[in-house]
Amino acid sequence: MKIETVLSPALFYQIEHLEDKVVVVIDILRATSTITTILHHGATAVIPTKEEAVAQEYKAKGYLAGGERSGETIPGFDFGNSPFHYKRELIHGKEIVLTTTNGTKCIEMAQNAYQVVIGSFLNLNKVVEHITFMNRDIVLFCAGWKEKINLEDSLFAGAVASYFADDDLDDSTLLCLDSYKVTKDHLFDTLRKSNHFRRLASKGVIEDIEYCCMLNTINSVGILKDGKLILA
Amino acid sequence: MKIETVLSPALFYQIEHLEDKVVVVIDILRATSTITTILHHGATAVIPTKEEAVAQEYKAKGYLAGGERSGETIPGFDFGNSPFHYKRELIHGKEIVLTTTNGTKCIEMAQNAYQVVIGSFLNLNKVVEHITFMNRDIVLFCAGWKEKINLEDSLFAGAVASYFADDDLDDSTLLCLDSYKVTKDHLFDTLRKSNHFRRLASKGVIEDIEYCCMLNTINSVGILKDGKLILA
Repeated sequence: MKIETVLSPALFYQIEHLEDKVVVVIDILRATSTITTILHHGATAVIPTKEEAVAQEYKAKGYLAGGERSGETIPGFDFGNSPFHYKRELIHGKEIVLTTTNGTKCIEMAQNAYQVVIGSFLNLNKVVEHITFMNRDIVLFCAGWKEKINLEDSLFAGAVASYFADDDLDDSTLLCLDSYKVTKDHLFDTLRKSNHFRRLASKGVIEDIEYCCMLNTINSVGILKDGKLILA
Repeated sequence: MKIETVLSPALFYQIEHLEDKVVVVIDILRATSTITTILHHGATAVIPTKEEAVAQEYKAKGYLAGGERSGETIPGFDFGNSPFHYKRELIHGKEIVLTTTNGTKCIEMAQNAYQVVIGSFLNLNKVVEHITFMNRDIVLFCAGWKEKINLEDSLFAGAVASYFADDDLDDSTLLCLDSYKVTKDHLFDTLRKSNHFRRLASKGVIEDIEYCCMLNTINSVGILKDGKLILA
């Protein structure tokens, strides 16, 4: 059971034998944290799409729609990308179409994997438990920001890696693991220094970032099945 | 003065305004450690080329030639890529043509930068002193291995970053810095876990790796000028 980390979508082409591997898609701020929250709050499925037009079509058919572009809610949509928008009473028992800048793009890139898993700090233990149970080679796929490497996704890769033996990790994963070791007790303060924090914080969403740094508040995990994200 | 880190040649396209920036090329095992050693041992210049055929042409004209492919000395060449091959009595006062798998490729990719600097642990302090003096935005360009991210180059980027303020660092650089913080007191043991170590160690070059992990044994720095690497 080997673990590779893809630190940017621009490096995803390096993955061989994708069809045999379990891919954990990681977009901590905020797509995969929000998807994890949506499923936890009782939505029956999240339909991810990178195309706003596709989300608009679903919306026209009566689906609830969420999405942002460059951090802003798409006009006319029911929700943005903040996990706080998706209250249980609004979404329980419903299917939600979701389009985001980076995260849903990565889900589509990874769709031919043996399985696509949605990762977040909120359900770290559950993600690790799930992929351990799968017993296959693992790819930790960091969405980054517009193809650039970001700190929060890399640190989550390190967090997952901390549950496995060093001999199973490639160099990218070792890099993330060492970083996680020094930052895990003050994640939020670490992310204060990150590029993403500077960008999101300026839009007044500090609460979102604090939420997305919380560890193991959710005990379920989302996977991709037939184009929809559902609970495993 | 901003610092960006490019963790793989496949991400180098993300650098904007290259012509205004100082690029530190990093191929710790072993190209940039060896180049630093060659210049320290009195060679007047190193001519880097990614093409073996170009190196062969120089060799035919009487130059000393060094090079490896996938870790092995090229047949007929005077030296491989081990720093121990380049003894002072053999190279003092001479120009050496050098071709390597990853490092010289990166030097060529970066050649339109304001300045290209050769980085290694051997002369870390001198590299930092030099780029600080240049007072321009900095790119730490890790050669990696066949486009893949590697641990030793990333940790050197972190070592350089440790001399600068966090606010000046992009996320890739912060990732390297945090990893360097936990590994700096046992670099060699850390690299024992790396992919590159497993590959090189199997060729019996542990001594090279120990040498390339030594800090500040050389007090000079190489830069690219008119296609040749010379002392700054």
